[in-house]
Amino acid sequence: MTTSERLVESTRELLWERGFTGTSPKAILQRAGVGQGSMYHHFAGKSDLALAAIRRTAEVMRATADTALSGEGGACDRVRAYLLRERDVLRGCPVGRLTMDPDVIADPALRQPVFETLDWLRGRIAAILREGCERGEFDAELDPEETAAAVVATVQGGYVLARAAESPAPFDTAVRGVLSLLTARTTGPGPVA
Amino acid sequence: MTTSERLVESTRELLWERGFTGTSPKAILQRAGVGQGSMYHHFAGKSDLALAAIRRTAEVMRATADTALSGEGGACDRVRAYLLRERDVLRGCPVGRLTMDPDVIADPALRQPVFETLDWLRGRIAAILREGCERGEFDAELDPEETAAAVVATVQGGYVLARAAESPAPFDTAVRGVLSLLTARTTGPGPVA
Repeated sequence: MTTSERLVESTRELLWERGFTGTSPKAILQRAGVGQGSMYHHFAGKSDLALAAIRRTAEVMRATADTALSGEGGACDRVRAYLLRERDVLRGCPVGRLTMDPDVIADPALRQPVFETLDWLRGRIAAILREGCERGEFDAELDPEETAAAVVATVQGGYVLARAAESPAPFDTAVRGVLSLLTARTTGPGPVA
Repeated sequence: MTTSERLVESTRELLWERGFTGTSPKAILQRAGVGQGSMYHHFAGKSDLALAAIRRTAEVMRATADTALSGEGGACDRVRAYLLRERDVLRGCPVGRLTMDPDVIADPALRQPVFETLDWLRGRIAAILREGCERGEFDAELDPEETAAAVVATVQGGYVLARAAESPAPFDTAVRGVLSLLTARTTGPGPVA
């Protein structure tokens, strides 16, 4: 890895573990094993480096979610694949956790990739559910936008419950809960549980 | 207010706005308008003061949620009242947001009231849904524990989506989504929408 890549990867790790407010430039330099001069050669400062790190993390999250959502089967199967994909639950969401970071939310440039990623995810799931509705996979009353927001919020809030409990169990319970509620809206024989 | 109360209230505000990691003892003293000597007279340090603040915030959150959940009507009405209660959405949950604070999660004493509050909330909603199931308000397949976890997670994750968007709209959309999914599980004529 180049020095610039090492700085971005170290920042990504620290933002996930400690958030922006809890990460000092010194901690980034130590983890990356580079000197202060190198950092300022490549980046204007902590915010600039954090922006590169958040954009990269957002790309990775989007690609991972898209893979789960692009699988085989109907709309319910694809949302199930997203909900049940393997996760390091106790680490939380590397993008969503930044919303609780006051210095990220106060900075429009840093907030932008966080917003775009979560907004994209809601839109992607809503589109899948809408296609499912059009194919008659769900009863006619299902609202794709509202349901997609509930699905994404359950995952994000599931991390909150899991971290509070120091156990992935409440995340799994919440995800099964929203999945059961969604599955009950399918018409016909539906997928095998 | 006494000096001790002023310190606790200032810490509660700062924890909500900036989290534990982002709040310095100096910021607490400035907001409370008290000197360092006063703080150490009443509290062993920042963690001790934060513990008093988190416990107080947890009590308030529990009382507020309990009021919404103790209203008139059936199980679905009571969960609806909880989901739709007035909230300062963009501030986030003063308890849930602490789960993204690495120094809170790493300290068992600070994590304990966060866990207990969210665990109590899940249990309270699960008990209401279980009673509803026993009275035949929901179809027989509804799982009270899983559904309660999904309800609490939707609220917590709704804050994440709202803060990312700098708008309460995605919170409202997510909450309406989980409420529609729950309402669809009620039997009989059901509550008026």
